[in-house]
Amino acid sequence: MFDWISLASKALLLLILIYSSSFMFSSKKWSPKGLHVYITGGSQGLGLGLAKLLARKGAHVSIVARNQTKLDNALKELEANRQSPDQVFKAFSFSLNTAEGSAAALQAASDAHGGQVPDAVFTCAGTAKPMYFLEMQPEDLSRGMENGFWIQAWTAFAAAKQMVRENKKGGKIVLVSSTLGYMSLIGYSSYSPPKHALRGLGDSLHSELMLYGIDTHIFFPPTMYTPGFEEENKTKPVITKAIEAADEGLTPDQAAAGLFSGVEKGQAHITADFITSVFRASTRGCAPRSNGALDFVLDLIALVGIPFWRRSVDKQVLAHRAEHREYLRSKGLVD
Amino acid sequence: MFDWISLASKALLLLILIYSSSFMFSSKKWSPKGLHVYITGGSQGLGLGLAKLLARKGAHVSIVARNQTKLDNALKELEANRQSPDQVFKAFSFSLNTAEGSAAALQAASDAHGGQVPDAVFTCAGTAKPMYFLEMQPEDLSRGMENGFWIQAWTAFAAAKQMVRENKKGGKIVLVSSTLGYMSLIGYSSYSPPKHALRGLGDSLHSELMLYGIDTHIFFPPTMYTPGFEEENKTKPVITKAIEAADEGLTPDQAAAGLFSGVEKGQAHITADFITSVFRASTRGCAPRSNGALDFVLDLIALVGIPFWRRSVDKQVLAHRAEHREYLRSKGLVD
Repeated sequence: MFDWISLASKALLLLILIYSSSFMFSSKKWSPKGLHVYITGGSQGLGLGLAKLLARKGAHVSIVARNQTKLDNALKELEANRQSPDQVFKAFSFSLNTAEGSAAALQAASDAHGGQVPDAVFTCAGTAKPMYFLEMQPEDLSRGMENGFWIQAWTAFAAAKQMVRENKKGGKIVLVSSTLGYMSLIGYSSYSPPKHALRGLGDSLHSELMLYGIDTHIFFPPTMYTPGFEEENKTKPVITKAIEAADEGLTPDQAAAGLFSGVEKGQAHITADFITSVFRASTRGCAPRSNGALDFVLDLIALVGIPFWRRSVDKQVLAHRAEHREYLRSKGLVD
Repeated sequence: MFDWISLASKALLLLILIYSSSFMFSSKKWSPKGLHVYITGGSQGLGLGLAKLLARKGAHVSIVARNQTKLDNALKELEANRQSPDQVFKAFSFSLNTAEGSAAALQAASDAHGGQVPDAVFTCAGTAKPMYFLEMQPEDLSRGMENGFWIQAWTAFAAAKQMVRENKKGGKIVLVSSTLGYMSLIGYSSYSPPKHALRGLGDSLHSELMLYGIDTHIFFPPTMYTPGFEEENKTKPVITKAIEAADEGLTPDQAAAGLFSGVEKGQAHITADFITSVFRASTRGCAPRSNGALDFVLDLIALVGIPFWRRSVDKQVLAHRAEHREYLRSKGLVD
């Protein structure tokens, strides 16, 4: 949906990146070597990509997901990325959408490391089910919040409490939102609210957990070519697919690399693609900034470009009216 | 918390407002005269302020809240604002935090008007309970979502479906977020997420409900001197109060006037104070715009001013560390 902006400004971005990178390697980078990292949704997609990357960086890795078979397969992939015989890789099967489930999963992973809370907690679990608002049952909307927000919030809740109890300075909580945590469009009324909510949670915790020396990060990935993406496409409205047709996505490994790079550099809001970076800059508000010069240019690009995008999307939606009315009729939703 | 920015730029804003107002009265304004408006949280605060204003504008007004005594008192206030003997004012006692409760309340108000869904639905219901993340029980976090998001989302859900079934072109759904739907800070981890989620919902519905000719608006009020505000202050952390000490708030009537003015002009994102307007402009992303020139200047103010604000707030939080540790100890939360 954003191809106009890509064509116009990728070159500009490159220049700025080169320019701004000179400011970046001044502060010390975070290294996960020898640390215990905890990754929810670690059996596939972004979570698995991140788990493998952190294994290669020398971390002890705990992954959590529901499906034991997928966890077993993921553990095999972690083994293939092992750097040292000392590294501990463990998988835990838990359902994370309740406070109790998330607390129990974190406790199990802590118990495997002498009862100590992990050094860094990455909440990559979550699913989306795009569909028309008009077609939803109440459960579709509430499950959206459960699978998009609570599944991560409860882990952050348990981890923050335990990190403070153990006075774990330098502990990290890393949430995973989405481009749709910065913006929204037709078809995402059950997904964009939880992803926005995660941003609200991340920004609150960033301000609050600095009291304890705990860092909060939040990642906003674009479309990722994961099993979850294939699942989403089964219910995604045709108009939403049409709007997104020109979008470029990331592989789980690319997204994981972007997430890790942002955490390494200490960025509070992390983006790994150009378009989401434009949205980051133009919705930054008082989010902690990593690179003011870059954000300024991206914000200018947004100021000029996004209104054109908005207008073209609105036009597409309005042009879809008659076809949509037919669709609603076929579903018995209108006479 | 924002006094520096106020001092520096109110004069500038005034100039821009005068300049930009010349663009504004071109399109036809919305008039509620003779329409049926439905207001949740209508027995006090913003909801009551809005109900009285719409009564003065000649609308039929239905208000919904839980407490019957407060509803009765509110009805008396509406009577005092009556313009014509034909106006119908009704009060409905319902609990709105479930899909069923919200649907039943809307149905009751529709039944009082020949079974027709209201012409405009304003979701003003909601409460906040600011507190430290570390002090929360899981219920505090989930109740925050219920009382900040679901209490409005379920009404929007029921109203959108009914408006489409009745093919109610020009129908309006107006959500009420908060300045904390654009930004966040320490103490608001149960409130900022639902208020961000409302923004996600509002932006999704704005894009989707245009299929049916239904308008979606969302209002972002700052501190309002309401009974709810007094309630919030009972649990608000001292550091949050200190950060907010210099903030100026609005009376419920001022906020209602700002909300109405934005709806009248067809603004998708509505703000009624300078600071929230700065946050609106600097978190605009692809939100539909009402005044690009004004937003551009506000965004520049944000680019320069907000980093200073951020730094000063972070400093305040960090300076509070020792005192906070004592507080946690006194509560038995750390050793």
